[in-house]
Amino acid sequence: MRVLGLDPGLRNTGWGVIDVIDNRLRHVADGVVKSDASLSLAERLVQLFDGVTGVIGQWSPEEAAVEETFVNKNPESTLKLGQARGVVLLAPAKAGLPVGEYAAALVKQAVVGTGRAAKDQVGMMVRTLLPGCLAATPDAADALAVAICHAHHRATQRKLRAALR
Amino acid sequence: MRVLGLDPGLRNTGWGVIDVIDNRLRHVADGVVKSDASLSLAERLVQLFDGVTGVIGQWSPEEAAVEETFVNKNPESTLKLGQARGVVLLAPAKAGLPVGEYAAALVKQAVVGTGRAAKDQVGMMVRTLLPGCLAATPDAADALAVAICHAHHRATQRKLRAALR
Repeated sequence: MRVLGLDPGLRNTGWGVIDVIDNRLRHVADGVVKSDASLSLAERLVQLFDGVTGVIGQWSPEEAAVEETFVNKNPESTLKLGQARGVVLLAPAKAGLPVGEYAAALVKQAVVGTGRAAKDQVGMMVRTLLPGCLAATPDAADALAVAICHAHHRATQRKLRAALR
Repeated sequence: MRVLGLDPGLRNTGWGVIDVIDNRLRHVADGVVKSDASLSLAERLVQLFDGVTGVIGQWSPEEAAVEETFVNKNPESTLKLGQARGVVLLAPAKAGLPVGEYAAALVKQAVVGTGRAAKDQVGMMVRTLLPGCLAATPDAADALAVAICHAHHRATQRKLRAALR
């Protein structure tokens, strides 16, 4: 199964695609969708939507996973991030993909083993878990981490269902 | 010129369409796009996007105007509203419409004459300014108010440009 992980942001939205084959993970691609800060908010949201929709068209993921947004103490930042996040959630849902949401602590737990890992630890572990992956930017590494979290979560659910049979 | 006003909300997004002919305003239609609270956030955002896109398809506005969101003290509410707002801004922009944004105080100023008007005053003035309009719900009345604000703003800009010639 192919999973698209997304780390939403108005300026930079990280994305990462992995394949999940049994319990093995394989890196497929990652990158960042950027919006042009000189444009209006509505135009920037179109750039994010078209960018994420383009990634889905190119890599054909079957499911998507988005990091739950850390609610900032600054309400203006929270609003800005919320607007980007709405559009980043919409793109895979419009493309017909199931979209999972995962809290940041759960993503860190899945990748590093603790919910309180530092940002560079996440990147290091992502590169260890996905050999051959560069995860060039922290946003792309975070997006791959969400995809890995989704894969673990699905595997756990499958085991639970099997145990309850 | 035909203007679509939008008042974004995750549960209820108000919309209102008016025609602006010289300095006269005419009510065309209004309503509310709802999302189903029992669905996932991503699915609800698809409902909002499809609903607003449908209104654009049905009424063919040439420009859109969206109320700037009041930043709530509750960060979770701000995030929720932000996600809805991102999708509501995206829909007209994806349809190729210019999208104006107006602060709530500016909208009230344009419709009631003061930036501190109560919500029911806005509805009353909208019904006075647009004869024949029912503006059945407060959300639809707010959306019509944003459209009226956009019409005033454009008229002022036109006069300014003419005076500077």
